[in-house]
Amino acid sequence: MQLATIGATPAGGVCRLALSEEDRQAREQLMGWCRQVGCVIEIDAVGNIFARREGRSAGAPVVMSGSHLDTQPNGGRFDGAYGVMAALEVLRVLHEQRITTDHAFELVVWSNEEGTRFAPSMMGSMAFAGLLSERDVLDRTDMQGHRYGDALAAIDQFGHGRSDRSIAAYYEAHIEQGPILERENCTIGVVTGGQGQKWFDLTLNGQAAHAGSTPMAGRRDALLGAARIIDALRNIATRFAPGVATVGELHVTPNSRNVIPGRVMMTVEMRHPRDSLRDQMEGEFRQALGAIASDECLTFSLETKLTQPATVFDTDCVSRVRDAARRLGYRHMDIVSGAAHDAIAIARVAPTAMIFVPCAGGISHDESESATPDDLAAGAEVLLQAVLESCRRI
Amino acid sequence: MQLATIGATPAGGVCRLALSEEDRQAREQLMGWCRQVGCVIEIDAVGNIFARREGRSAGAPVVMSGSHLDTQPNGGRFDGAYGVMAALEVLRVLHEQRITTDHAFELVVWSNEEGTRFAPSMMGSMAFAGLLSERDVLDRTDMQGHRYGDALAAIDQFGHGRSDRSIAAYYEAHIEQGPILERENCTIGVVTGGQGQKWFDLTLNGQAAHAGSTPMAGRRDALLGAARIIDALRNIATRFAPGVATVGELHVTPNSRNVIPGRVMMTVEMRHPRDSLRDQMEGEFRQALGAIASDECLTFSLETKLTQPATVFDTDCVSRVRDAARRLGYRHMDIVSGAAHDAIAIARVAPTAMIFVPCAGGISHDESESATPDDLAAGAEVLLQAVLESCRRI
Repeated sequence: MQLATIGATPAGGVCRLALSEEDRQAREQLMGWCRQVGCVIEIDAVGNIFARREGRSAGAPVVMSGSHLDTQPNGGRFDGAYGVMAALEVLRVLHEQRITTDHAFELVVWSNEEGTRFAPSMMGSMAFAGLLSERDVLDRTDMQGHRYGDALAAIDQFGHGRSDRSIAAYYEAHIEQGPILERENCTIGVVTGGQGQKWFDLTLNGQAAHAGSTPMAGRRDALLGAARIIDALRNIATRFAPGVATVGELHVTPNSRNVIPGRVMMTVEMRHPRDSLRDQMEGEFRQALGAIASDECLTFSLETKLTQPATVFDTDCVSRVRDAARRLGYRHMDIVSGAAHDAIAIARVAPTAMIFVPCAGGISHDESESATPDDLAAGAEVLLQAVLESCRRI
Repeated sequence: MQLATIGATPAGGVCRLALSEEDRQAREQLMGWCRQVGCVIEIDAVGNIFARREGRSAGAPVVMSGSHLDTQPNGGRFDGAYGVMAALEVLRVLHEQRITTDHAFELVVWSNEEGTRFAPSMMGSMAFAGLLSERDVLDRTDMQGHRYGDALAAIDQFGHGRSDRSIAAYYEAHIEQGPILERENCTIGVVTGGQGQKWFDLTLNGQAAHAGSTPMAGRRDALLGAARIIDALRNIATRFAPGVATVGELHVTPNSRNVIPGRVMMTVEMRHPRDSLRDQMEGEFRQALGAIASDECLTFSLETKLTQPATVFDTDCVSRVRDAARRLGYRHMDIVSGAAHDAIAIARVAPTAMIFVPCAGGISHDESESATPDDLAAGAEVLLQAVLESCRRI
């Protein structure tokens, strides 16, 4: 709650854009807290922060946990911040209980997860995982033309790199950002992986014409075609549950009350935990699209914008999370992350798992984002136990 | 074609906005042509032009014909201009053949029919018909804040009123602006009236949520509701043919690729030649809307923006058009105007009919608007015969 005062909005949310003055304040606050429990801070070249607590075996691979401090423009208090604070709580317990571990433990703050100011999202973790080059990250610009690298230097978070170290395990605690745990009355989501996703841009072309003098028969109404496709997509995704399909963005041309829409541009995205089933969804979508376009005398172009395979988290890490939840007596369930997270990028280079806790109504990216202290504490406890297992408490 | 050089666009269309310099040039050109055939010009207080050719009975009600000279920003060469030129051709024939009529004949140019620069459309004819006050018209402003009255004075088309005269008949020739005549292979559309129309603004409210982490079941997707409503509307209108229903404008909020749409604002318009059937269409629409909203867990608000009753043209005037088409041997059919026209306003105060001729592909309000010289000449011939009947040739 103290962290949430930095960038607090009147409606109870947080606006703390990546590399803003608010982001700087939150980073300084967090680093101060880490130093109080004896951590040594390193910042890498793209602004990721690592707060290290040494283990007994100096050369052993490190155990890491964290998330991000930046938010959406109308963001909430928990998305990202919770995962960082849960890792801080682990550091504090290790410190207060004077626990010695075999492996070192690092709290990590990934820079620019949201991607709102500088696209794409998850820049810091992607760079760490080698999915983006440092140069590429530093040269990205925001809408005002400011370079990422300059903005990083301006808030004095431009580090000198980080020596490559191998990672024993990475854990990330996060609010679910969906309604499943709440609906199933579970405290802990044992995240087994992330959905794969595919993004398309679809343009439908018909013929704009006078809405009064053009009979229904013979119209080539692009919006009518779009409507049927949206409905068909829902039916496909429902049959492929837990797969999802969404048309989030739609633009009508000319978008005038008494003109039959001649063109519609819309986005389509599909997600599924299993890539082969997502491919089947795509096949059915393409078939429906062709049939509807032909039926409505429309032409179309379908462009693939993103193909992201499904992520399967590390079996051992996932088991430690599940075992901890069971030992601690929390109602828990396996769950697949519908949203993208830094952990999805890190899973490419390290054994990874995530811990979800419920958020009210499944709502996130909104100032009304909310979670209960009990659930948040439970998630931190599970994190602590999983970290202790991975760090090998001595 | 000479008139179409004034405001000609590179793509072969015309941009001649109401009360622009191009409008002034077209008006001056037209008045010059009218004076060449002996007409006396009057301009009324809202800029309508009346070119009068006297009849033998000075006090007898006048027969009028005309349309408008202003165009859409990307308008064509025929919408409006054709009806004025057809009336000019009548004047020329009467003049060249030295025909004496009992009633006077007036060519009329209605000011600002398109309503693109100054809203609403059909301002000149609506003021003439007493549906708008002179004061109201003169005080309307365009997007730059220019008053209609000032713009009228600036192009020197600010008249001194027009003495009230009763009208024996008003005829307006126009391109169909729809595909029916072309499809039915008819040269002349005998327009029996205009469709009534009703406009609605519909807002659907659901719940914006993360497109990845929100399962299909339990979504409250406003765009999905909109899609089903658009489809239902088409099915209703198809059953009520020749009624039509159109969703021309649609706005999604937040309109982001990976957010389930929380809100959709859309327009709905319905037209039918019979008001009672349009009311039935509306009833079925409201029923479908309620059912779909309930099914999709959406709330909605439906606001009526315009209710315009159907127009039935004068039986005698319509018969004269039909008889003329038959006598002249043109393939013809009765048709209801789907679009609004000055004649719809004038029908409130005078016996009125319209003559439609085909336009290529039914396309209008577009630079590609096109019609054949033969069809245009046929429409003018029918107009001449109907006018001669109404003027009582001596």
